[in-house]
Amino acid sequence: MTQAQQPERAPQRSLDPHLHRYARRTAGMTASQIRALFAVASRPEVVSLAGGMPYLPALPMESLAEEVARVVDSEGLTALQYGSAQGTVELREQICEVMALEGISAHPDDVTVTVGSQMALDMVTRIFCDPDDVVLAEAPSYVGALTTFASYQAQVVHVAMDDDGLVPAALRAALGSLRAQGRTPKFLYTVPNFHNPAGVTLAVPRRAEILEICAEHDVLVIEDNPYGLLGFEGQTYPALRACDPVNVVYLGSFSKTFAPGLRVGWALAPHAVREKLVLAAESATLCPPAFTQTVVSRYLATHDWKGQIKTYREAYRERRDAMLDALEHYLPGCTWTHPAGGFYVWLTVPEGLDTKAMLPRAVTQRVAYVPGTAFYADSLGSRQMRLSFCYPTAERITEGVRRLAAVLDGETELLATFGSVGPRAVSGPQAPSPDTA
Amino acid sequence: MTQAQQPERAPQRSLDPHLHRYARRTAGMTASQIRALFAVASRPEVVSLAGGMPYLPALPMESLAEEVARVVDSEGLTALQYGSAQGTVELREQICEVMALEGISAHPDDVTVTVGSQMALDMVTRIFCDPDDVVLAEAPSYVGALTTFASYQAQVVHVAMDDDGLVPAALRAALGSLRAQGRTPKFLYTVPNFHNPAGVTLAVPRRAEILEICAEHDVLVIEDNPYGLLGFEGQTYPALRACDPVNVVYLGSFSKTFAPGLRVGWALAPHAVREKLVLAAESATLCPPAFTQTVVSRYLATHDWKGQIKTYREAYRERRDAMLDALEHYLPGCTWTHPAGGFYVWLTVPEGLDTKAMLPRAVTQRVAYVPGTAFYADSLGSRQMRLSFCYPTAERITEGVRRLAAVLDGETELLATFGSVGPRAVSGPQAPSPDTA
Repeated sequence: MTQAQQPERAPQRSLDPHLHRYARRTAGMTASQIRALFAVASRPEVVSLAGGMPYLPALPMESLAEEVARVVDSEGLTALQYGSAQGTVELREQICEVMALEGISAHPDDVTVTVGSQMALDMVTRIFCDPDDVVLAEAPSYVGALTTFASYQAQVVHVAMDDDGLVPAALRAALGSLRAQGRTPKFLYTVPNFHNPAGVTLAVPRRAEILEICAEHDVLVIEDNPYGLLGFEGQTYPALRACDPVNVVYLGSFSKTFAPGLRVGWALAPHAVREKLVLAAESATLCPPAFTQTVVSRYLATHDWKGQIKTYREAYRERRDAMLDALEHYLPGCTWTHPAGGFYVWLTVPEGLDTKAMLPRAVTQRVAYVPGTAFYADSLGSRQMRLSFCYPTAERITEGVRRLAAVLDGETELLATFGSVGPRAVSGPQAPSPDTA
Repeated sequence: MTQAQQPERAPQRSLDPHLHRYARRTAGMTASQIRALFAVASRPEVVSLAGGMPYLPALPMESLAEEVARVVDSEGLTALQYGSAQGTVELREQICEVMALEGISAHPDDVTVTVGSQMALDMVTRIFCDPDDVVLAEAPSYVGALTTFASYQAQVVHVAMDDDGLVPAALRAALGSLRAQGRTPKFLYTVPNFHNPAGVTLAVPRRAEILEICAEHDVLVIEDNPYGLLGFEGQTYPALRACDPVNVVYLGSFSKTFAPGLRVGWALAPHAVREKLVLAAESATLCPPAFTQTVVSRYLATHDWKGQIKTYREAYRERRDAMLDALEHYLPGCTWTHPAGGFYVWLTVPEGLDTKAMLPRAVTQRVAYVPGTAFYADSLGSRQMRLSFCYPTAERITEGVRRLAAVLDGETELLATFGSVGPRAVSGPQAPSPDTA
C-alpha cells in the first residue's frame, strides 16, 4: 500500500482561488430561501409553515418495510444494478395509469423517469433554453423552477394569476409585448392545480383558452402537476396534456402522493422531445436509481395507493381547514387564498410590512414561513408569504398562525412608531445557515 | 370528476414540431453506443463484454433485505422525506472514511452527495464550463464524461496515455499548444486508477508531475475514481486529491464498491467550489434521495464493507485472468492492456479492421463489446475496443473471446479478399435499438 502525501502548499491569495474559472451561469446560482428553511423546520420549538414536506406518518411503514425487503430479496440483481436511462418499463406503464386519473392518455414509451420532477424540469430547461431565452411563469411561481431557469441563464417573464389561476388576458398581453420586442418565449411554465405557492387552481374553462393562446403564439406548455390528485373533495381537473398531447410537456411526481425521499418523478413528452430528454438525462445521471423505481413499482402493485392518496388528502384537508380558521380568527388585517387541494396558502400582509425583513423576528418568535420574494424572479412579493399546512398538525398550525399574528402586531406597531420596518438585530435563533442537513 | 377532453388536432407538418425550439446544446446530444448496449447485455445468448455492470450476485442479498426493511421501519420518517441538497451528514462522514483508504484527509462539509458520480461530473461541468470552453481528457476517456462535456458544449482536447497512464510530456504539449492559441482549459478530467476504458493506472511518480504541470498552467484537476479500491492485489495508490487539496475536485462512487442501482456518488471539492456544487445540485434534483443514502449509510455501518470490496475484487481478478488468458490464446494478432484492477481491457485489432463497423457482425456471432470510437471526442479509436470482464463468469469470458476471435478471423478474411471491411447487411440479431429498457 502506498501512503498519502500531504505536501505543504503556499498560502492562498484569494478567498476562492477558483473564482476566475466559474462558468457564467454560476452568476445566477444563489442560495434559495427554501433550502435554508429545511433547517428551521427541523427545530422542534419552531412551528414551520415553511417547508413543503408531506405528512409521512400517514404511510404504512410496516408493510412498506416488508415490501422493500422483498425488492432486495427477489429483485435485488436488477433493482441494485444499472438500468435504462429512460426508467423501467414497469414503472412507466404504471405512471400512465396514474396519469389516466386526470384524463391523460399516454404511451409508456413517451414517459421518462427522473430523479424527482425537479430533474424533469432541469432536463426540459436543458433541452429548450439557451442563455437569455425567455420563459413565461406564473406570478408567483415555484421557487425550484425559478432556480433552475436561472441556472440555465433563462429570463423569466411573470404572468399574473387571480383566484382562478393564470389570467388569459395577462398571458396575451405578455406574449404581445414580447412579440413587439421580437421575442418568442421558449415555453410557459405552469402549475395548474393547487398552485405552489399561490394555492389557486386554473379554472377549467380557462384551460382551453390558455392552450389556444399558446398554440397561436407557438409557445410550448410545461405543465407541472405534483398536487393534482390532492383535491380535498376528491375532485380532479382535466390535465392540459389531456387536451393537447402535441404542445404540452407534462411533469409528474410521486413525492406528494407517496414519498419524496425516493425522488421519483417523470416527464411525459411528445416522442421527439422525449428522445432528447432521455439523452439529456443520461448525461445527467446515467440512469435514475433502479432501486427506488422498483420500490415505487412494488408499492403501486401491492398497496392501495389510491386509498393512501385519500388518506393524505383527508389529513391535508383537516389542516387546510385549521389554517383557514386560524387565519380568519387571528389575522383579520390580511388576505389569503383558499386552496381546494395541495399544500399551500398565499398570504398578503398589510401595506408597509415586509415579509422578508420580518422573517428573522418571526423565527425568534418560533414560527417560520417562506417570504413571497422567493417566488418571483423580479423581487416582487415583499408583502406576501407562503404558508404550508402539509406537515404540522392542526393544533400546531393554529399555534403557528397565532404566533404569526403576534409577529405582525409587533411589525405594525413598529411601522406606526417609526414609519418603516427594516431589518434589525435580534437575539435568539436567527435565519438558519444554508448548510445544515 | 371532470373528464379528459381529446380534441382533434390539425396534422403535423414536420416530423418534430418542436425542432425550432431546442437549445443549441442539443446539437451535441446524440445517442451513445454504451446506452444501446445495455440492451445487448440482457440477451442471454450474447456474451456481453460491453457493459460495466458490477457482479451483484456477490452481494449478501438476504442481510441487505433485512437492512433496508430496518431503514423503513426505524428511519422511514426521515429516509422517505425530503433531505438536504448536500446529502446527509452521516453519509458524508462515512464517505470521508472511505476516501481515507486512498490517503485523502477531508472534512464532511466539503463533500456533496450526488445521484451517482455521473451527476457529480455533470455538476462540475455545469459550474465550470461555458460553451466552447476547453477541457482536457485522456485519450481514450470515459464515454459518460464525453457525453456530459458535449451537453455543456465544451470542447474536449485529448491527451495521450501509455501503459503508465496519462503521459506528462503529452500534457505539457497540449497545454503549450492551447496557450499558443490563447486558450486555458477549464480542467483536466482524469481517471487515474484502472482507467475506463483503457485499463491502465497512472504511475505513482507521474502523479506529482501531473499535478505540478496543472498548477503551473493554472488548470484544475477533476479526479474521477470509481475503481480505486478494486486493485487486484489489494493495492491502492495515493489519490491526486491527497497530494493537492486545493486544485483537485475528487469524484467518488458506491456503484462499484457496493451497488450502482442506488445511484450514490459524491464530489469532494474545495469549500468555495463545494458551495457552488450544492447550489447546482439543488437546482438539478432538489436533493439526492434520502432513502438510498440511508441504505448506504446503514450498509456501511452494519456490514463488512471492506470484506465485500475484497470479495468483489477477487471475483474480478479471476475474470481478468480468464480474459487475459483467452486473449493470449485466441487473439495472437491483437494487442491489449493488462489491468491491475477495475473492469476493463483495451484491445487494439490489426490494421485495416474497424471495430465499429464489425460490431453488428459480432453481435450476430453472439459477442458484444464497446467500439473504441465511443471513447474519443474526435472519432479516433476505430481499431480499438473496450472489453469488460466484470459481469460474465470466467467461462463466459473465455467463450466470448473465442467468438470474438472468430469474428476477427472473418473480418481479416474479408479484408484480404476485398481490401476493406465496411458495414454489410446481416441476418439475425442486429445492433440493439436505443430504447429498450
